[in-house]
Amino acid sequence: MALAQTNPRLAWDTVLVLGDDDAPLVARLERAVRDAVHAGRVPAGSALPPSRALAESLGVSRWVVTEVYGQLVAEGFCEARVGSGTRIAAGAAAHATPKHPAAPALPAAGRARLDLAPGVPDLRHVPRAAWLRALRDALADAPDTDLGAPDPAGHPGTRAALAAYLARARSTCAGADDVLVTHGATDGMARLVRALRAAGHRALLVEDPSWGRLRDVARDAGLVPVPVPVDAGGVDVAALVAAGARTGARAALVTPAHQFPTGVALAPDRRDALVSWARAVDGLVVEDDYDAEFRYDRRPVAALQGHDPGRVALVGSLSKTVSPAFGLGWLVLPPRWRDRLEARSDGVAPSTVDQLALARFLSDGGYERHLRAARGRFRRRRAALLDALDAALPGLPVSGLAAGLHVVLGLPEGVAAAAVVRAAAARDVAVADVRRYRVTAAPLPGGPAEALVVGYGNLADARLGEAVAGLAAAVREAR
Amino acid sequence: MALAQTNPRLAWDTVLVLGDDDAPLVARLERAVRDAVHAGRVPAGSALPPSRALAESLGVSRWVVTEVYGQLVAEGFCEARVGSGTRIAAGAAAHATPKHPAAPALPAAGRARLDLAPGVPDLRHVPRAAWLRALRDALADAPDTDLGAPDPAGHPGTRAALAAYLARARSTCAGADDVLVTHGATDGMARLVRALRAAGHRALLVEDPSWGRLRDVARDAGLVPVPVPVDAGGVDVAALVAAGARTGARAALVTPAHQFPTGVALAPDRRDALVSWARAVDGLVVEDDYDAEFRYDRRPVAALQGHDPGRVALVGSLSKTVSPAFGLGWLVLPPRWRDRLEARSDGVAPSTVDQLALARFLSDGGYERHLRAARGRFRRRRAALLDALDAALPGLPVSGLAAGLHVVLGLPEGVAAAAVVRAAAARDVAVADVRRYRVTAAPLPGGPAEALVVGYGNLADARLGEAVAGLAAAVREAR
Repeated sequence: MALAQTNPRLAWDTVLVLGDDDAPLVARLERAVRDAVHAGRVPAGSALPPSRALAESLGVSRWVVTEVYGQLVAEGFCEARVGSGTRIAAGAAAHATPKHPAAPALPAAGRARLDLAPGVPDLRHVPRAAWLRALRDALADAPDTDLGAPDPAGHPGTRAALAAYLARARSTCAGADDVLVTHGATDGMARLVRALRAAGHRALLVEDPSWGRLRDVARDAGLVPVPVPVDAGGVDVAALVAAGARTGARAALVTPAHQFPTGVALAPDRRDALVSWARAVDGLVVEDDYDAEFRYDRRPVAALQGHDPGRVALVGSLSKTVSPAFGLGWLVLPPRWRDRLEARSDGVAPSTVDQLALARFLSDGGYERHLRAARGRFRRRRAALLDALDAALPGLPVSGLAAGLHVVLGLPEGVAAAAVVRAAAARDVAVADVRRYRVTAAPLPGGPAEALVVGYGNLADARLGEAVAGLAAAVREAR
Repeated sequence: MALAQTNPRLAWDTVLVLGDDDAPLVARLERAVRDAVHAGRVPAGSALPPSRALAESLGVSRWVVTEVYGQLVAEGFCEARVGSGTRIAAGAAAHATPKHPAAPALPAAGRARLDLAPGVPDLRHVPRAAWLRALRDALADAPDTDLGAPDPAGHPGTRAALAAYLARARSTCAGADDVLVTHGATDGMARLVRALRAAGHRALLVEDPSWGRLRDVARDAGLVPVPVPVDAGGVDVAALVAAGARTGARAALVTPAHQFPTGVALAPDRRDALVSWARAVDGLVVEDDYDAEFRYDRRPVAALQGHDPGRVALVGSLSKTVSPAFGLGWLVLPPRWRDRLEARSDGVAPSTVDQLALARFLSDGGYERHLRAARGRFRRRRAALLDALDAALPGLPVSGLAAGLHVVLGLPEGVAAAAVVRAAAARDVAVADVRRYRVTAAPLPGGPAEALVVGYGNLADARLGEAVAGLAAAVREAR
């Protein structure tokens, strides 16, 4: 019984029994963990194996395991602590077994009926027709030579169109040569952290909380993520400087325009301090500009890149503005990092046809027309969401700039975010616990202890009332 | 004067003076190297700095430097030896300075007026209309959820369509789950070698000669390429086994169906021996299936992957059959490598729209119709090329299976391939010295010492006579 605690090399493939029904693998593994706990095969407090190890022993992909762990942590069934991995929570055995054991876990982002998950744009309004026109024109006009081996850095015309757009919309200071076309933010980040690692970097300062995927990419490239707390002024740059000095980290991944998930902007004095730090330590600031185009109260904050193009790399993509499925993004790099990335043989440009379509979409104003329409839609939807939340859950604090695709909803005393996420999922409402984006378990300075990240990017307007009602019922149920 | 020999940290940025004219950077750097030698600033026999170091000191991309080195080696102006880098050849100072110093170097593949460079399909016959139809249908029919965050391993429908096509056309033995959608062979190889490196591999057995790009990718991921000679039966598997035992390498990159560039097929007993070796050392055979669809005399040799799906990974793409600009390829992986690749966070799938178009193109027979037409075109073009070579350069040995997109042309006694390449480039005919694909300088067993790789993939039929005439004139000139 205590095997799981005493023997880390426990044969998990015998403890966790995957059902052979038609449910998705994620749902089957999640059920197997619950069953093992309820059946007493794994006692409360037991450490679960590292995701890699479990994935190997079960013959499933690591993604499946991290999804399940993330879900169980979000629900409070498991606990994650830095340095000690994921454990079965003390009260896990008391958690009810879900009524429909084969029911899928938290509906994946973009797939729930009532989607309040953050990080997805409105999939109903992907500009399919405009994109098809751009593809058609690109295919019709491309000279034969453009269909030969592509430049790994991107097509020159696309790089120029991106440089012009980013200067216009994000106040960047970069020429076409400084822009690389990528497959999106993950690809851009992966290429950048591989170059950082090759140049001797061993650690990367990251915001806590922050989007997990880019941290994972850094970790897979061999950079240790070093968490730095976030408060109402954005990332705590004094703490960042101290953490850098302590660990030797000289690169930092930040979200200056709109911190994810807290929704704050980096305070102006901290912008200066961050760039000064990068100069002083011969370091690099990586600016994740993930949803900067969506600001509803004023013009977006300029990119930090324009502040010091020699010290700031900007990572951007179409994922939050058009669709993550288009696989298109960009990097704006200081010259020496650009050369280092270009010198690597493992960078691959996206389809030239897609790149030529992107260049047209940017140059003929199609992208900005799409953004204007999306901004109006999201501004109205955000206002309607705030009204609905205020009516259904009066008095709960909502924070975050009038920007982006999500707000943070503080929960009343005594209501656990994990319990709300679980109760909401049972109503087919996808919503996220702020904890999902934490790096450490340290309390968030200033913020409510229990909070949800409520996304409205992919929420059908007609379903907004129903979604908020489901969420409010989940909060009441979890009280 | 001897500075370059005695001080490897020579300030190359002062020795090599880049012109500031409008010529491409590659041409300007190439000229700078020639000028430095002719002016006596760099004596014959001097080691050139590693490409990375020179790229950094000049502030250019490493690609520029490797292109220039490759070109100068191909011309015999420089020599490349494994373990001692690139050196100025003994007779370099006697090479004539090109008459037009600002003229571009060897025209890039796909860009020369008369393109006999290998590795490029017929860019005049990229199926633009069929691809646009597939894109249109994909955009019209994709459910909104398909436009959300993509599975890094690829869209399930595309993986299934690839598994079906590969089983049909290449006799692979793999289900949809065993197939990953990639951005092409380079991306597939990069993902695979990163996983190999993470699993503890330190070296990769490679064919000598072979395509350089995939070796570079392995090297950038931290795997040392270990060369194994190729003869008329393909890669020498006995030598491969010995090299593996000597170096500890347990992974091998091979081209069984049509060795590049020699054009031979791997002998049946060697296919067995190679797979047996992989089983015995718990290793992996990486099968680069680069142009297997193009065989003109019989059905293509089946993929080695079908021989032992647990030990062979297959790397494929549309690059040689449709266009390298489409950025689409695939990996077929043994289950444990599939899981390792899926567990990594740095793999990114191509655009879902492109993937859905590919699934349609494969499933509705469009791809196979395109291949049939291309096969007919290339078969006729190959026959015409052989006739023209025989008429213009009678008696020279042409080798390579009736397959693929290139032949190997042996040169007469006393004619240096490098000199022919140079003389052909002056006529705007792009052709490659076999030496360009060598890993070592050891003689090729059985093959002629001086030989050219003559590609016909991207040669306009109407220009075939003119191209061969230019080549024949270059051979006469170099005699």
